[in-house]
Amino acid sequence: MGGVNTVERERVPKQDRSRATRQRLLQAAVACLADHGWAGSTVLVVAERAGVSRGAAQHHFPTREDLFTAAVEYVAEERSTALRALFPHGAADRRAVVAALVDLYTGPLFRAALHLWVAASNEEQLRPRVTELEARVGRETHRIAVDLLRADERRPGVRETVQGLLDMARGLGLANLLTDDAARRERVVAQWAALLEETLG
Amino acid sequence: MGGVNTVERERVPKQDRSRATRQRLLQAAVACLADHGWAGSTVLVVAERAGVSRGAAQHHFPTREDLFTAAVEYVAEERSTALRALFPHGAADRRAVVAALVDLYTGPLFRAALHLWVAASNEEQLRPRVTELEARVGRETHRIAVDLLRADERRPGVRETVQGLLDMARGLGLANLLTDDAARRERVVAQWAALLEETLG
Repeated sequence: MGGVNTVERERVPKQDRSRATRQRLLQAAVACLADHGWAGSTVLVVAERAGVSRGAAQHHFPTREDLFTAAVEYVAEERSTALRALFPHGAADRRAVVAALVDLYTGPLFRAALHLWVAASNEEQLRPRVTELEARVGRETHRIAVDLLRADERRPGVRETVQGLLDMARGLGLANLLTDDAARRERVVAQWAALLEETLG
Repeated sequence: MGGVNTVERERVPKQDRSRATRQRLLQAAVACLADHGWAGSTVLVVAERAGVSRGAAQHHFPTREDLFTAAVEYVAEERSTALRALFPHGAADRRAVVAALVDLYTGPLFRAALHLWVAASNEEQLRPRVTELEARVGRETHRIAVDLLRADERRPGVRETVQGLLDMARGLGLANLLTDDAARRERVVAQWAALLEETLG
């Protein structure tokens, strides 16, 4: 790629800095949502948490809705990538896959997403954005689950089996919201992984 | 029960009125939580919705936490009773039971409870109350599910199968929060009811 002049050489680090700022804002936004909920999460609070000026935050994300939907999407994508990376050669052990899928719904990302969903159910400004985001993230998670579980969706019932498993994972995330539900969750995962094994063959 | 004097005869209707007021407040509180979320739900808003004075509301429920935890518990008990009444002679058809259990998590009660759970995750004043309430309601729902599904929990895996089913029901409720998910839900319920049938025998 010859012909890079001085101006372009200087531009690259600036783009890097801008991208780093954006990422810091997105990560701070998810942490803020998880810790304080929607009511306690403003662009200013996130900017302070990220160590970024309010002006810079608003340059990247003009509205509060922009910031928080982008944040949940960004972290969801990061988690999807990490999940695929856990099983680079496909998964030999379906129980490990089920456990990893369920883990998607028990950390700060799920707590943040939950706050956003619940707020969207009462706020008309937020609702269409979050509905669309949830559908997109849900489709991607389903695709990963099908791949990692080596589920053949052409067979009747397989699609619904995987969907029900992801619904259960979401419900387990909810059960973990107020108390540490890890011990019970592990037993449920073991049992349902066994049911899944029988169904997927 | 001879010997009822005039004072006692007058007292009964007053107790009835007081109980009716209490019930109106509880129902209004659940509707208010479902419609406006925790941030928009105060004792005053509920009193107005129920057509009760603020003083009367505070007589029944001294604090906001008292009112809303009592409301979710009251409606949860009503729903449990209604669920048992649906299958007075036990259930012949497990799929109908699974569908009815899942229905517990798709209406205004679930939306109200969800707002309360999510608020409790960030509010220290609410958290212990809601944690205790959730555990109590959860145990009762599990007991009903075991009865109606004729599940023999002495057999290995059965307890975890029923728990996972209720987790799935909760997750399906969450999926229904922003959009009408009824068509997909029906297919998932049909498939998992079939898997359950194989497991419970």
